[in-house]
Amino acid sequence: MITAKTIEETRKAVREARAAGKEIGFVPTMGALHEGHLSLVSIAKKHADFIVMSIFVNRIQFNDPKDFDKYPRDFDKDLSLAEKAGVDMVFLPDETVMYNNPLTFVDTSSLDRYLCGASRPGHFRGVCTVVTKLFNIVQPDTAVFGQKDIQQVRIVEKMAEDLNIPVSIIIAPIRRENDGLAMSSRNIHLSNEQRKQALCLSESLQTAKKLIEKGETSTAAIIREVEAEIKKGSPDSIDYISIVSYETLEPIKTLSTKSVLAAAAFFGSTRLIDNMIITEGDSIQ
Amino acid sequence: MITAKTIEETRKAVREARAAGKEIGFVPTMGALHEGHLSLVSIAKKHADFIVMSIFVNRIQFNDPKDFDKYPRDFDKDLSLAEKAGVDMVFLPDETVMYNNPLTFVDTSSLDRYLCGASRPGHFRGVCTVVTKLFNIVQPDTAVFGQKDIQQVRIVEKMAEDLNIPVSIIIAPIRRENDGLAMSSRNIHLSNEQRKQALCLSESLQTAKKLIEKGETSTAAIIREVEAEIKKGSPDSIDYISIVSYETLEPIKTLSTKSVLAAAAFFGSTRLIDNMIITEGDSIQ
Repeated sequence: MITAKTIEETRKAVREARAAGKEIGFVPTMGALHEGHLSLVSIAKKHADFIVMSIFVNRIQFNDPKDFDKYPRDFDKDLSLAEKAGVDMVFLPDETVMYNNPLTFVDTSSLDRYLCGASRPGHFRGVCTVVTKLFNIVQPDTAVFGQKDIQQVRIVEKMAEDLNIPVSIIIAPIRRENDGLAMSSRNIHLSNEQRKQALCLSESLQTAKKLIEKGETSTAAIIREVEAEIKKGSPDSIDYISIVSYETLEPIKTLSTKSVLAAAAFFGSTRLIDNMIITEGDSIQ
Repeated sequence: MITAKTIEETRKAVREARAAGKEIGFVPTMGALHEGHLSLVSIAKKHADFIVMSIFVNRIQFNDPKDFDKYPRDFDKDLSLAEKAGVDMVFLPDETVMYNNPLTFVDTSSLDRYLCGASRPGHFRGVCTVVTKLFNIVQPDTAVFGQKDIQQVRIVEKMAEDLNIPVSIIIAPIRRENDGLAMSSRNIHLSNEQRKQALCLSESLQTAKKLIEKGETSTAAIIREVEAEIKKGSPDSIDYISIVSYETLEPIKTLSTKSVLAAAAFFGSTRLIDNMIITEGDSIQ
C-alpha cells in the first residue's frame, strides 16, 4: 500500500494506475477507521480496481474547535486497517498541504438548512470544500460515502451534479453493531451506560419502520412515536427528529416521494446520529 | 471544427484528443468574440494542441437581468471567427445543459470586496461557479484568461489553487484598438462620441505609467492624476479608480509588491474597465 503525503505523489500514483487501465475508486475519511469505513472500501472494490482512501481531519468542517481537537486520531492503526482492507493508496496530507490561506469555498445554498446543518452552521461548507479539493486531487471515477451521514451524502451528490464533477457517487448502507447501534468514530467516547442508552436511536427507527409498513403516512405521527422511543433511552438532549424529502432535504408532512427519517441526540457530550431512507412510502433502507 | 452542444459530446472529443497524446487548451468566453478573444486562442495554441472554446452567456454572473438580456449574441459569427482562429471545438451549451435547479456555488470570500466586485454583488460567485463547471466539463490542461478582467483572472487563479483544480492558468495581455482603447464586447454599445470619450481610460493608465516610472510610489498621488485624466473624457460617472495588491486585491497606500491599477467608468449606460499590472514598482504590463 502506498502512503502519499503530498498531492504530487497522489496524482502520480493515480496517473500510473489509470495508465495501466485501472478505474479509480475513492473513500474519503477523517481516520478513526472502524468497520463502517472498511465496508466502504469493499464496496469501492466492486466498482473500481485502484482504491484510494484519504485520511484528513478537516478543521474547517468543525463548528467547535474543541470537537476538532478531541477528534480521535490514530493514523498508524488507520494505515494498518486500510492495508488489511485492500486499499491501494492512502492520501494522508498535513494541514499545510491542504490549506494555504484559503479564500475559496463551495457551498450548497439550501440543503443545509435542516437536520444536522441547522445546528452546525458552516459545517457543510467545510465538507463541500474539502470534498471538492479531494476530488480534484484524486480525480476518482467512483467515490463511496456512507448513508450514516445522509445529509452529507445528499449534499455531495447534488454538489457533484451541480458542478459537473466527473465522479460517480455510491451510497453505502449503514453498518451497525450486533445490537443495532450505528457504527461511528464517536462511539468510543460513550461510557458503558451511555452505550446502552444510545441504542434508543436505532430502536426508534425500527418503531418507525413498523408504523410505515402498517401504512402510516403522517410524518407528525411517525415522529411522535420515534420521539417516545428515543426518550426511553434518556438522552441528555434530542437535537432533531425529522422526516425530509430526499431531493430537497426539506421537511415534509406526508410520506410520498423518496424521503429520509433522521435523528440526532446527545449522550453526555457525544452527539450521535442515525437515519433511514424511505422509498415510495414503504421500502426502507 | 467540432460544435458540441452537450457535456457528453464535449467530454468524448476531449477524451479522444487526449488519447491521441494532445494537451487540452481552454478559452472560456461569453461569445461576442473580438480580436481580444482570438488572441487568447493564439496564446492557448502555444501551450496546447487541442483548443476548446466555450461560448455561454452565464446568467448567474449578471447583477442586472437587463444587462444579461442586452448582452450581444451572434453565435453564427462567433463560430465562424472561432474556426478561423484555429479552435478545434466550441462548447455551446443551452442554459438547460448548464443549470438544473442549481444549489451549489463557488465563492471567494474576500477577493471580491473591491474593484468591480464592490458594485457587482454575486458577480464573481457566478463567475467562479461557471468556471468550475466548465473546468470539470472540459478538464483542460491549460486555460487562458484575459488580463482585461483582472479581478476575474486573479479570482480564478486563486480558486484553482484553493480547490486544487488541475489546470494551469495563463494570463493574456490586454488587446487594444490602435488608439489604445481596450477591446471589449461592450464597445459596440458606444456612440461615436462616447467612443472618443472612452479613450480617457487607457490614456489615464499612460499618465500613471509615466508617474510611476518617474518614481512616484504614493497610490493617492497616482490615483489623483488618473482621476484628472479620466475626467477629461467626461464619463457619465466613474465607478472606481483603485490600486490594489495583486495577491489580496485590497487597496494599498504605497507601491511595493506586485499590484494592479484598475479603473471603471460609465459612458452612457456602458460600463468600461481598464487596468495595468505594476510589478516591483516600475515594470508595467
